[in-house]
Amino acid sequence: MPKGSGAGGERPRLRTMEELSVAIGVSRPTLSRYFQDPDSVSRSSRERIARGLERVEYVPNFFATRMNRKSTGMIGVIIPYLNDLFFTKLQQSIEFAAMEAGFTVIVQCSHTTPEVEARAVETLISMNVDGAIVAPLGDNSDIAAMERLNRRLPFVLVDSRPGALSHVDYIGTEHSQSMGLMTEYLSRVGDPPVFLAMPRVNFNALNHERAYLDKMEELGLEPQVVGTEEIEPGAHYEAHGELALGREFAEGRLTDRSIICVNDRVAIGALRAAARFGLDPGARRKGGLRIAGHDDYPLCPFLVPSLTTVGQDVDAIGQAAVARLMKKIRAENSLTDHAVTLFPGVLKLRESA
Amino acid sequence: MPKGSGAGGERPRLRTMEELSVAIGVSRPTLSRYFQDPDSVSRSSRERIARGLERVEYVPNFFATRMNRKSTGMIGVIIPYLNDLFFTKLQQSIEFAAMEAGFTVIVQCSHTTPEVEARAVETLISMNVDGAIVAPLGDNSDIAAMERLNRRLPFVLVDSRPGALSHVDYIGTEHSQSMGLMTEYLSRVGDPPVFLAMPRVNFNALNHERAYLDKMEELGLEPQVVGTEEIEPGAHYEAHGELALGREFAEGRLTDRSIICVNDRVAIGALRAAARFGLDPGARRKGGLRIAGHDDYPLCPFLVPSLTTVGQDVDAIGQAAVARLMKKIRAENSLTDHAVTLFPGVLKLRESA
Repeated sequence: MPKGSGAGGERPRLRTMEELSVAIGVSRPTLSRYFQDPDSVSRSSRERIARGLERVEYVPNFFATRMNRKSTGMIGVIIPYLNDLFFTKLQQSIEFAAMEAGFTVIVQCSHTTPEVEARAVETLISMNVDGAIVAPLGDNSDIAAMERLNRRLPFVLVDSRPGALSHVDYIGTEHSQSMGLMTEYLSRVGDPPVFLAMPRVNFNALNHERAYLDKMEELGLEPQVVGTEEIEPGAHYEAHGELALGREFAEGRLTDRSIICVNDRVAIGALRAAARFGLDPGARRKGGLRIAGHDDYPLCPFLVPSLTTVGQDVDAIGQAAVARLMKKIRAENSLTDHAVTLFPGVLKLRESA
Repeated sequence: MPKGSGAGGERPRLRTMEELSVAIGVSRPTLSRYFQDPDSVSRSSRERIARGLERVEYVPNFFATRMNRKSTGMIGVIIPYLNDLFFTKLQQSIEFAAMEAGFTVIVQCSHTTPEVEARAVETLISMNVDGAIVAPLGDNSDIAAMERLNRRLPFVLVDSRPGALSHVDYIGTEHSQSMGLMTEYLSRVGDPPVFLAMPRVNFNALNHERAYLDKMEELGLEPQVVGTEEIEPGAHYEAHGELALGREFAEGRLTDRSIICVNDRVAIGALRAAARFGLDPGARRKGGLRIAGHDDYPLCPFLVPSLTTVGQDVDAIGQAAVARLMKKIRAENSLTDHAVTLFPGVLKLRESA
């Protein structure tokens, strides 16, 4: 039944171009041309169609056709933040890969709120998307909602995977390798690196901290972690980095050390702190303050100094996630193998370390 | 007809929880509790439901209910870029306002491509969203697609409005005022400012350039515009800013001038160029190099030096756009008044100027 019909006193709802053609007395070819480009038909036809469209409601058959088809041609994506260029880059690679495959992407943002994430799951399920790719809130995610998604749809996790969802397909970065790579590099070129962390809310933040600690132990070096406590409630990651490292500098600590930041956004704040204290990270050939990040945030090459970091292969992650989802969709969940694909991080050596 | 039925050899598709309850022999209340949280029902019910869901396909009535309802409860949004924190900030304010109003937001990105933008328009129309908010590609937008959207749905433009769409409701920043404000400020505190432009692709970039020229004329000052030609094809805005200003500095030009950048992303590149040439924008009380931007990109406070810019009231724009759209949706397009709301920009004085 077309949208709104049945409700009284409304303009007739038409569902096909044929019906519309009859109702307003304009040939079907003329109508199609008009809907492509109104200026492609004569002025008189244009006016007649415009008048006609005011008398009737022409509703396309999207929902009906979707209901009659096996596939809606849509895949759903859930990301935790909008104002984070790492996730927009990941979303973009997913959208390009999905477009290639002829799918429309419906993105929902969970805005770091489990309730919103759970609602987004319901929205995707209720829209009958063919499958879902989710970058979860980590341990804050509503596991029951994720389980429901996993029962109902082809489902792939990206970026991070909560322990409770270890049975769900996962595509991401090999964080132990990527953060270990940076720890090893900085240890080689200077003092044992110090880890600038975040309040323990973010999931991969903990993975990165653990990877740093493991690598330091492996290298037989004394680890040091700063910035784990929340200094300013609800501060941006960048502000946290500036406050946490600034506090150390103010006490005369760490001014000539190598600092590994939990991610690039915290590192951006760390660079600010260095500038405020007249320090120039990476300026000296040997020794002196170094600052490095993780993720290869798109702005890293344009920071002052440009930020040495570990690149996550976001394009590969997005493409692999879509490819895996397509395989699951085609297999209609009869797929028995369980996929975990981790891409190695790559050192991006720039000015700051 | 439920999705997929008619196709041969498939599990029975059920459309209501009643049908499901009968089919798998579990009471309806137990089923609802299960779908809220599987752990809220007994282990045996949980297992029986799980087994049942493997025998049948329970398809929610989203499409059907949507077709029977006057409203789909969805609004569509189209933005031109993903990797731009200005647009993610705008999108976020729209999503929060829409959530408040109880609507689900379907965001499509046009990825700066008119064909993709036109397809996004078709997607939103065919999904029967209740209304659409579009940040267009400016003069690159597919005007016919936008006209079609305007004929079919409550429609509001944000961020910029192509000349051909001057009859469409528009919510944005008063760019002549905002860029004029910065021009006036820099003229007051130093030499007549120079405008660092972009290749003439971006719509508001042209508005900003025009606003600068008008204000300079009003102040009786000699305008100077640099960076209008494309230096590196397809370069990021930031790279363009660094290349364009770097080229001037290399020739010994503009090293002690006040530079107004067309937007903050170009200004981020300009700060890079200054650092490369050992210049410290805004360091001197009087005279010396100054660099300013436009938009108040979320990272501005964390740049080195922090960037003086003009803030666009993105939250107010997003909220006003949703409020206007809601009014048009409730009025079912019988609204005759035509709304243009422009919010003034606000000077954000930081270190760089």
